Amino acid sequence: MRAVDVIVKKRDGGELGEEEIRFLVQGYVGGDIPEYQVAAWLMAVFFRGMTGRETGILTREMIASGETLDLSGIGGPFVDKHSTGGVGDKVSLILAPLAASFGIRVPMMSGRSLGHTGGTLDKLEAIPGYGIARDAGEFRRVLRETGFVMAGQSGEMVPADRLLYALRDVTGTVESVPLITASILSKKFAEGARSFVFDVKCGSGAFMKNRGDAEALAESLIGAGRGLGRDVVCVVTDMDEPLGRMVGNFLEAEESALCLRGDTGGREDLMELTIRLGAWMLVLGGVSQGVEEARGLCLGMLSGGAPYRLFLKNIEAQGGDAGAFERAIGKRRAPLRVGLPSPASGYVAGIDAYSTGMAGVCLGAGRGKTGDPVFPDVGIVFHKKRGDAVSCGEGLCDIFARTEEAARLACARMEGAFRIAEAPPPPRSMIIKEYGTV
Amino acid sequence: MRAVDVIVKKRDGGELGEEEIRFLVQGYVGGDIPEYQVAAWLMAVFFRGMTGRETGILTREMIASGETLDLSGIGGPFVDKHSTGGVGDKVSLILAPLAASFGIRVPMMSGRSLGHTGGTLDKLEAIPGYGIARDAGEFRRVLRETGFVMAGQSGEMVPADRLLYALRDVTGTVESVPLITASILSKKFAEGARSFVFDVKCGSGAFMKNRGDAEALAESLIGAGRGLGRDVVCVVTDMDEPLGRMVGNFLEAEESALCLRGDTGGREDLMELTIRLGAWMLVLGGVSQGVEEARGLCLGMLSGGAPYRLFLKNIEAQGGDAGAFERAIGKRRAPLRVGLPSPASGYVAGIDAYSTGMAGVCLGAGRGKTGDPVFPDVGIVFHKKRGDAVSCGEGLCDIFARTEEAARLACARMEGAFRIAEAPPPPRSMIIKEYGTV
Repeated sequence: MRAVDVIVKKRDGGELGEEEIRFLVQGYVGGDIPEYQVAAWLMAVFFRGMTGRETGILTREMIASGETLDLSGIGGPFVDKHSTGGVGDKVSLILAPLAASFGIRVPMMSGRSLGHTGGTLDKLEAIPGYGIARDAGEFRRVLRETGFVMAGQSGEMVPADRLLYALRDVTGTVESVPLITASILSKKFAEGARSFVFDVKCGSGAFMKNRGDAEALAESLIGAGRGLGRDVVCVVTDMDEPLGRMVGNFLEAEESALCLRGDTGGREDLMELTIRLGAWMLVLGGVSQGVEEARGLCLGMLSGGAPYRLFLKNIEAQGGDAGAFERAIGKRRAPLRVGLPSPASGYVAGIDAYSTGMAGVCLGAGRGKTGDPVFPDVGIVFHKKRGDAVSCGEGLCDIFARTEEAARLACARMEGAFRIAEAPPPPRSMIIKEYGTV
Repeated sequence: MRAVDVIVKKRDGGELGEEEIRFLVQGYVGGDIPEYQVAAWLMAVFFRGMTGRETGILTREMIASGETLDLSGIGGPFVDKHSTGGVGDKVSLILAPLAASFGIRVPMMSGRSLGHTGGTLDKLEAIPGYGIARDAGEFRRVLRETGFVMAGQSGEMVPADRLLYALRDVTGTVESVPLITASILSKKFAEGARSFVFDVKCGSGAFMKNRGDAEALAESLIGAGRGLGRDVVCVVTDMDEPLGRMVGNFLEAEESALCLRGDTGGREDLMELTIRLGAWMLVLGGVSQGVEEARGLCLGMLSGGAPYRLFLKNIEAQGGDAGAFERAIGKRRAPLRVGLPSPASGYVAGIDAYSTGMAGVCLGAGRGKTGDPVFPDVGIVFHKKRGDAVSCGEGLCDIFARTEEAARLACARMEGAFRIAEAPPPPRSMIIKEYGTV
């Protein structure tokens, strides 16, 4: 087999078979097929797409390029959630202990902030002493002890995805639904769970800016995921506006704790989304037969306080200091605090998620590029969110910065993010579309 | 500027500007832009195409990547011909001395055989002692002495084309009209001539298999070439059948000599094409006002014998032995001679050019891949061509081979190449379409 023939077949709209995709993936990872041929193939895939069958094969071959986690000996059910990334998205920190409180095991591998989107690992590391699980032994121990575990992608897992993602990034082939699908699924399936809820975000703060693209990705995840024998649910959700009232690493860990403690005022968007995703996890985990019933179970569990206790237990199990964390709540803030007054009276018609994310990058809450440092204590606290009435001069948000320059840049971004209107905006739901269990 | 942004702009259908194309070409040749980014860009160009303006800029930047020939001090007019490659295409060997006989200077850089297509340089080197011009000094001297010069592409000219062509070859991006256009034009324009006749071949033995593709290439050559201020004429010509009665390196040098001597029987296709292309060269060189008048001038010049005398003079000027060449005519043949009898009585309805070319590769007249050796004395001599009546068992062609194995393989190819029908085929013209002077 020659790589150029596989490229030409895809270029001309053909469907690649198992041997051809395996040849490409193994050849690339093994160093036998040069990057320029893979780059040309990626661009051909960008234009020609892939069938669900091809996407499934690509996913499987990417998983086969490295190690997979062995969860045998730990009682299931195993259910995981994955989000395509957004602004203020701390759902995982609330959801994992919530689902684990029902006996569901949540082996969660997350990523880091890049560009305007936040990263769960950066938020967790803002908790004093917290360390993401570093090896399979620790992963299994924490999962057994607290029902959920928070880890990063290890270097040995899915090396094909690391290589392909880096190549896509520099060759203009990131925005391809089948390639995104295979990248997401290969990483999640290598974790060892069998059931997954995917939160496909849609809007200015998301990777998928419009509903058509988000639904195409959701359908591709469903098709390829189920084709590989996994239980997959997809929820397309609104990411035009930052989630909750806080953006920043410690701030989001803090806000997660507040939600778990029941302090959910002004955080209706975040709670609506978390409860909905949690309900689907209960359905996938066999705890409940229907998603509506499961929502009620989630609300009841939260009000009982068990998820918060599990959250603190996990902090300790992953090396953190739960007491120090609780004492820092409401206090750990970067030294410079700048308020943003409303330029007019009226209602908050919207807060642009992308601009908010970029304000976070200015502050050092997020990364402009891979490898940039992030700071735990910077960020944005909203006093007003969509639909809130506001008077001219009243504070819209506070910005916590480490330098005057960062504060100035972030302020300018946030001024552009808020839209003030005379009338209140129409109500909206976080849930745009659901692809439930079969 | 970042290469990935240029890739994405092309990927999304944008028109690239001068700075962007220069950045890519110079960056690639200079080693600053890696091959994988160029490969992704090439595939994006394959799908999105290029405007005439972009193709012109790409051509200019490719020329600027290396040296160009300086023809100053040699009296013009300079007119060159380029063919996109075919089977039995020895037109250059007849045409160059013909045009030069009118005082036109023909600085001709040619290529080598690859795949089923022949190479002018390989045919010239089958002439005893003949050496293609090796440096600018020899190029200028031979051009001045004999009015035409036969040379290969030097390593210093258009390095961007060498690099890009090699990359296209392994990334499935060869078949792109704007990339083909820029490759052809950059090489020809770097020679220093201002006027060009392009023979765009169309059919089974050509790179462009169908009329639509051939016309698209012709129009692209015309548009980009004229946009760069050159006089360009394109003739789309038939390449379903091998040209003339001989295929092979020495055989084609011999057939060129025969045509120049007036022995043109059974070579009507070759002569029709050569005279037509020659007529356009006369028009471009200002020798004649109209192509019909110019055809008459060409026929008269050939019958006078001056072009053949110039051909012999050029052989001597390029280090060859004209006497030894003439003595070898009709005699220099590989040792094994195998005749192919007609399987039926009737008429030759067609001889497939691609199969003939591949028979040539089996014999070692052409190269399966770059770097393969070629033999001067192998090849095919046709006794029957399209339209000829034939009896069952009568010889269709003779195959001259160096080994039994090669003869057997070539015979099988040629058996498949001939189509015998009961009725004679309709007449055809070599000229499919012309894009004349403006």
